[in-house]
Amino acid sequence: MQQEDIKQLKISSAVINRLPRYYRYLKQLLSENRLRISSLELSKLMKVTASQIRQDLNCFGGFGQQGYGYNVKLLFGKISEILGAKEGYTAIIVGAGHLGHALAAASTFNNRGVELKALFDIDPRVIGTACGELMTYSMDSLEDYCNENRVDIAVLTVPKNCAVAVARRLAETGVRGVWNFTGVELELPAGVSVQNVHLGDKLMTLCYDIKNNQQDED
Amino acid sequence: MQQEDIKQLKISSAVINRLPRYYRYLKQLLSENRLRISSLELSKLMKVTASQIRQDLNCFGGFGQQGYGYNVKLLFGKISEILGAKEGYTAIIVGAGHLGHALAAASTFNNRGVELKALFDIDPRVIGTACGELMTYSMDSLEDYCNENRVDIAVLTVPKNCAVAVARRLAETGVRGVWNFTGVELELPAGVSVQNVHLGDKLMTLCYDIKNNQQDED
Repeated sequence: MQQEDIKQLKISSAVINRLPRYYRYLKQLLSENRLRISSLELSKLMKVTASQIRQDLNCFGGFGQQGYGYNVKLLFGKISEILGAKEGYTAIIVGAGHLGHALAAASTFNNRGVELKALFDIDPRVIGTACGELMTYSMDSLEDYCNENRVDIAVLTVPKNCAVAVARRLAETGVRGVWNFTGVELELPAGVSVQNVHLGDKLMTLCYDIKNNQQDED
Repeated sequence: MQQEDIKQLKISSAVINRLPRYYRYLKQLLSENRLRISSLELSKLMKVTASQIRQDLNCFGGFGQQGYGYNVKLLFGKISEILGAKEGYTAIIVGAGHLGHALAAASTFNNRGVELKALFDIDPRVIGTACGELMTYSMDSLEDYCNENRVDIAVLTVPKNCAVAVARRLAETGVRGVWNFTGVELELPAGVSVQNVHLGDKLMTLCYDIKNNQQDED
């Protein structure tokens, strides 16, 4: 195991979960041609404490210099690398309903270094139609497509009742990750990572905030 | 200030952010007519440690009894109360595009005790059309609607370039919370809570998991 790998393993999942937020802010700073930023300024921007920032970013080496701050480009590059945004991952959306279309239309994938390749559905009315620059294919051709094209990530936006079956098919085609919007628990082989999105969880936190009149920091 | 309020203030935001997940699992257990569950069993189900569960749930009083476990109904009721799911909050979706329609069609709101009332858009092609049982109204009638109906939550699914202006209008109508899907930072008056959803953050965590072949626990 290389030293680099060892370093990565030490990063806690709490820190990893916070890194995409750093990624967003640093991407924004880069687009504004900012060369460096102090932990204090970054802390004000991101509305977290400067000590939290120093603690988070110290996990993977000292990009901050006393009196200089962080080198925006270096830090962004390192975070991109850690998060896998430089791996050139590709994705397909399985389920070309409203949510599938919304995700396909957003800049979500491009902005994170993931190339979205196609959509899949069973509805004859959408099969063969384009969603932006992406084609919608029949679910019948899922396996063939995945054999002929490298597909790392499947975005699962199918109805609940077929979530498990479709996820299994995807795992068999060799996808390495499933971004699961179905709300259904998936049991997939060890080689397939799953990230579940439960949108309603944030709605509940909002209800809590309203009840207690609190502000979000995200 | 009542004792109840004081207790709530002591709950950390980290615990609050985890509560919706307990809510989901307990709701499921309730629907299966489960009367009680041990922290060990809940821990296996939710794939977190039993000590984490005990620690989280001890924050708001002892619903767990040694050798008995948690009373599912009591615990679910308490978590619902803390999260504001019993407040009868109402919501509108502003931006009836793909994402707005996807959210309207999902059981996200109902399942969390929030009543979704209507959608709003500027597109003449969708104004006046129904989305399931919900009507889509013109943005011109937003203020009138909010004056005539109690609207606690606005779900913001408009394009980035009008996010700030629309959010300000919503704040002026008196909504108490904005569920913000636009990716744009909103500066709203102190009385308005905001929960930002950055879907891409989860995509990045998935990329990290793929790169490191890790499994999600959510």
